[in-house]
This record gives sequence, C-alpha cells and structure tokens, in this order.
Amino acid sequence: MKHGGDLTEAITRYGGDAADWLDLSTGINPWPYPFGDIADAAWQRLPARADEQALLAAARKAYRVPEGVDIVAAAGTQALIQWLPHLAANGPVAIVGPTYNEHAPAWQNAGHEAIVIADLAALPDNVVHAVIVNPNNPDGRIVDHTTLAAAAAKLQQRGGWLVIDEAFADVDPGIGAAVLCENLPVVILRSFGKFYGLAGLRLGFAISAPDVIKRIATALGAWAVSGPALHVGAAALSDDAWVDRMREQLTEHATRLDYILTQAGGRIIGGTTLFRLVRHPDARYLHVQLARQRVWVRRFDYAGEWLRFGQPPDDAALGRLADALGADE
Amino acid sequence: MKHGGDLTEAITRYGGDAADWLDLSTGINPWPYPFGDIADAAWQRLPARADEQALLAAARKAYRVPEGVDIVAAAGTQALIQWLPHLAANGPVAIVGPTYNEHAPAWQNAGHEAIVIADLAALPDNVVHAVIVNPNNPDGRIVDHTTLAAAAAKLQQRGGWLVIDEAFADVDPGIGAAVLCENLPVVILRSFGKFYGLAGLRLGFAISAPDVIKRIATALGAWAVSGPALHVGAAALSDDAWVDRMREQLTEHATRLDYILTQAGGRIIGGTTLFRLVRHPDARYLHVQLARQRVWVRRFDYAGEWLRFGQPPDDAALGRLADALGADE
Repeated sequence: MKHGGDLTEAITRYGGDAADWLDLSTGINPWPYPFGDIADAAWQRLPARADEQALLAAARKAYRVPEGVDIVAAAGTQALIQWLPHLAANGPVAIVGPTYNEHAPAWQNAGHEAIVIADLAALPDNVVHAVIVNPNNPDGRIVDHTTLAAAAAKLQQRGGWLVIDEAFADVDPGIGAAVLCENLPVVILRSFGKFYGLAGLRLGFAISAPDVIKRIATALGAWAVSGPALHVGAAALSDDAWVDRMREQLTEHATRLDYILTQAGGRIIGGTTLFRLVRHPDARYLHVQLARQRVWVRRFDYAGEWLRFGQPPDDAALGRLADALGADE
Repeated sequence: MKHGGDLTEAITRYGGDAADWLDLSTGINPWPYPFGDIADAAWQRLPARADEQALLAAARKAYRVPEGVDIVAAAGTQALIQWLPHLAANGPVAIVGPTYNEHAPAWQNAGHEAIVIADLAALPDNVVHAVIVNPNNPDGRIVDHTTLAAAAAKLQQRGGWLVIDEAFADVDPGIGAAVLCENLPVVILRSFGKFYGLAGLRLGFAISAPDVIKRIATALGAWAVSGPALHVGAAALSDDAWVDRMREQLTEHATRLDYILTQAGGRIIGGTTLFRLVRHPDARYLHVQLARQRVWVRRFDYAGEWLRFGQPPDDAALGRLADALGADE
C-alpha cells in the first residue's frame, strides 16, 4: 500500500532520517492536544467499560450526537473503514472522488463493486451505498446537509448506507452531520488524531442508528481502544476551550501558509485549515525539489499539477518551506 | 458481553472505586515491562512502516518465527480473533474447551457453526477448523507439538485452519509452535499485553504462512497498531534478559500464591504462572466473601467449584488476599 503520509518512502528514496525531514505530507495538526500524565493503570489493565463510557460521553458532546443515535470507538477510523464493507448489505458502492484512497479498496476487498462518481447528487441507479469524505480530502469540498440527506434518502430505499467520512470536519462545527442519523441510514466516521494532532494514538468513531452501531461494535469486539487513547480522548474531546482556540490558530496559520505557497507561484484551489491544496504548473518538479531539501509533501497520481501541504509546525518550518520553494519570505 | 476481567462489574455490584479493589480477575502480569519515555512523534504522527518493521523483527525473534513464515501485528489479539473467522473458509469450527469465551461467538457471528470439543486429538469429521488455547485458559493444559501437528494435518485436507491462541505461552519458551506454520495451515495468535503486563497498550500478533498473513494484514488495514505500542513492543520483545528474569519471578510468586490458596482449603488444579486455577468446595461463597472485601477473582458459570486467581502484585496484596480468604499467612 502506498501512503503519502509515511516518511519511510521519503527516506528510502531521498535519504536522511526522520529527524532531518520536515513532513508536510499529512493533514495532521502539528499542534497536538497537550494531554497530561497517563495513569499506570491505563497501560497495564485491560481498558474498562467505565472508561470507554466516559470517552463515548465526551465524544457524543463534541460531535453533537443526538439522543437516539449511537456511537462506537475504534483504534482509528481506518479500522472502521476496514469493517464497514463487511457489515453492509451486498451491492455496489459509489465513492465521491477523487478522495482518500483507502475507501475503494476496503469495499472491493469485501466483494463490492466500487464506482467513483464526481457528484453525490448524481447517484447512479445501480448503487446501494455511497461514501463521501466531507470536507473532502484533498480539495476541501463541503457538501451541505440537504444534499447529504437527499442522497441518504435514495439509498434508504435501496437498503444501503451513506457513509460520511468526517475526518477533517472538526475545523468547523457546522459541518458535522450526526443529526442525519436520526432518520436516515447514515454512518458517520470521525477521526480523533487529525484535529487533535495525535494520529499515533489511534482513535476514531462511528456514529449511526443503534442497530448499525451494535453490529459494528460486535465486529470490533472487546477492548478495541487502548487505555491511553481512552484517557487522552476523553480529556481532549471535553476541552471546548482548546478546540475553539485551535480552530482560530489553524485559520491564522493557513493564511500565512497560503501566502508562502502563492508567492511560490502556486494557486490555492482548496483544502481545509489542516491542509492546503495547491495547483502549480511545475508541481512534479517542485515535489522533487522539495524532497531533495528534505521537505515531504503530498503529490497525486491523478492530478499532476496538484500538491497538498500540511501546516508547518512553527516559524522556522514555515521559513524552511519558503526557502525550499525558492520563494521570498 | 461479560468480561471477568472488568472491575466495572465488581464496582457496580459491590461498590468502591477502582483504587479500592485488589483485582486478581485477570491473567495479566502485575509486574509490567518498565518502558522508558515515549517520543512525542509516536503519539503525534501516523505510525511509520519502518517502526512497524522494527516491531515485527523483534517479535519474530521473541516468538521464534522461522524463515518463510510471516507475522502481522494488530491492536490486541482480540482484533485478530474478530477477523479470522471472516477470512477462513466456510465450515464448522471445533473449539477445544472450556476455554477463553471470545473465540466461539467470533466464529458464530461470522456464520460458522462452533462446536466445543474436549480433546484436539478427537476432532469430529465434519469440522473444517479448530481453535485451541495453548496453554489453555483457565486450566493451563498444554498440548504438545506432535498432537497439534496431527490435528493441523487433518484440517489441511479439509481446507481449514488450526488456530493456536498462545496468549499465555510466554511463560515457557518451549510451548510456542510457530515452527508448525512452515508446512501446516496453522495460525498462531500471540498476546503482548499479558506477559509484559501492558494489556492497556493493545498489541497482539498473528503468525502463519505468507498468504494467510497477507489476507489478515489486508483486512486489518493501515496503521493498525498505535505509535506507543510500536515503540514499547519493539523494546520489550527485544529484552531477553527481562523475559528470563520475569519467568523466574512469576514461578517464585506462583509458589507463594499456591501456598496461600491451599491453606484456604483450595486445591490447585491448573493454571500457568500468570494465573492459578483452584477447586474449592465453597467457591461460590468464597467469591462473594472476597468481593465484599474488595478482592475480585474469576468465577466460572460452567464450573461452580472453580476460581481463578491472578498474581497479587506485592507482599501487601498477597497478605490482603490471605486475610480475605480467612487463611493464616
């Protein structure tokens, strides 16, 4: 598998070790949630149901999950992406793309035909399920609740699901569509690690109707989430003040990043405040130029003029990027 | 689901909070591997392939995985127990029991008939797969490699697997049967958290032929193991000196625990050095008596005279158990 976010490839091809690299190839917040000490028991004991319940209560509030809609936690959203196609009804899935490249193979490996479509509103007649990443990765396109609900209503008649991957939805509280799960066959995926800057922790959630969540929970089995993830997640998801500040901080820094990228001849064509999508006529050359200076960004096989930039963690990193791009700071 | 190892039930029924309880209901080593600081990057970044490879290299050595046999890591053995029945050929499974109670439902939920058998050597003609926990939980029974190989050879003719759950095999280096994977359809599960005393970390492994491991890895998907688990696991699995000392320490303390349990009128009928299985004529009463004194041990619905005791973490805890049992120290 090819994961743009893995420095292992960069190091293999261009040398250096992880410490030498400025890794801007992910959409992970470089300002992680500052969690405190983790109790020894969180490492040593099996995760307790009481701790899992505390995490889920915090997540319900953070993700605005209404009464009557359920939520389950997993060791990262990817674990949920892997299971969903095995639990879904038979039939083809439409994936609104181009998008995050792990959805299609997960459905295909479970025996579903996967069709990439450009627009959720133009759902082919033969598909039973649809997957949309909202906001989309890498272009940041946001689909409104009305359009999502209309698609979900169509799929409901076919016995299917609308899977909404809200991996980057934390940047704006208006995006989350958990309220749609009340009456529609919607399965929402929330990723903890990206906005909270703790992708190594492995924590993600599925939100849906109680019967769907029960099936997912049964598939995942007991102790799906580590003790440290239960504790860090419960604290972070309850910290509204940190979330508000971080949304502002990301917006400010995205503006600074956009300036650097524009100065270098790029045009910002999308993104969220966790990553910026740039069109540049020399994108392929630029990717190599950056890599030779140990700056790793995301390129796209399907769009040769695109590059995606994560947020540099500090002024020094922003300056290093500017220098590497050959732009004036 | 009912998990004997979860203090949440004890607290609900008998009161107190987690700190009040002496939890002897698990088989988790109370002397955890003393891992050092975890780098910030392990929490913040997506787990890198290079770190995963380092973990797997350490695990291959620790578990004596021969050349030509593969290994994959997951967020705990339970995650593997959940996936295996979905990847296995259709057909009934024989589970050598009574044993760990999560195997049967995982196979049943995936559509397999599950039959409990008493003896792996007496495999019913109609089963395609078999599962054995070796050493068994709770009675500690150990099945030798010859018997395992004979069963695996039978299942090979039926297109099935022999799953060997070696959750407690670390206590004795002679038990592990990874060598059988060279020529037989054997899938071995190794649990990191029990022997290394870090069950909250969530780390487990499957060992099998390359094609089987590839299917498991594809099902698990990317980033299945957290950054902290990659780092702690790689260090611990490489520390042969700690493993040797811990095996001795567990043996010594098991002898002391056995003395206390025997003094209280129990008869040691099995176990490993991570837990002791006791037959006691008043086991049901004793379970309540212990719980009222905030000592939580495992009881068994199917064997009313059995109790299972994990290792008390220190002399004070051993004394507390002895007092609670009403035995002389």
